[in-house]
Amino acid sequence: MTYLLVQYGVPADVNAFNRYYHETHVPLAKALPGLREFTVSDGLVNPLAGTAPHLIAQLSFDSPEAVEAALASPEGQATVADLPNFVTGGVSIMVYTARLA
Amino acid sequence: MTYLLVQYGVPADVNAFNRYYHETHVPLAKALPGLREFTVSDGLVNPLAGTAPHLIAQLSFDSPEAVEAALASPEGQATVADLPNFVTGGVSIMVYTARLA
Repeated sequence: MTYLLVQYGVPADVNAFNRYYHETHVPLAKALPGLREFTVSDGLVNPLAGTAPHLIAQLSFDSPEAVEAALASPEGQATVADLPNFVTGGVSIMVYTARLA
Repeated sequence: MTYLLVQYGVPADVNAFNRYYHETHVPLAKALPGLREFTVSDGLVNPLAGTAPHLIAQLSFDSPEAVEAALASPEGQATVADLPNFVTGGVSIMVYTARLA
């Protein structure tokens, strides 16, 4: 499984961020071709070490190539282009393939 | 599902880190009571935005209380106490409950 792990920094206006994220951004991301699962953090992220992001989203795909294809698609371009519309606290986006430990 | 998301910064000695992590630390973490799934990044983490950690581990539990109990157990204490034995590039540890988007 290949994950697109998205960590949003604490936004300037938490309520505005949450509303826009769930009402507008999530539907865009859910349209990504090849998306297998899409989870978002529910409630606060608790930092045991380091600085907590405001929200963590994890999108699962079959392979790195599937992530590339998803991001290159019209739906992927629309999703990425939407980020500046609501991200005010920075965002980190990592792609990695995971295996059972 | 509640996740313990562990992101290790790039270590001073990558080979030494990888060897110690997989041979010593993973077996300690796998003994955590209540652990449902344990995945680790396989190969490089590709940063689309932000700075890539060296390795990402995701441990799944049933609830925040299960994570707390795991960390408070003797196995959890041994796992946490092992971190300074191999972490040289920093580590971020987040606990969050996720739901389908």
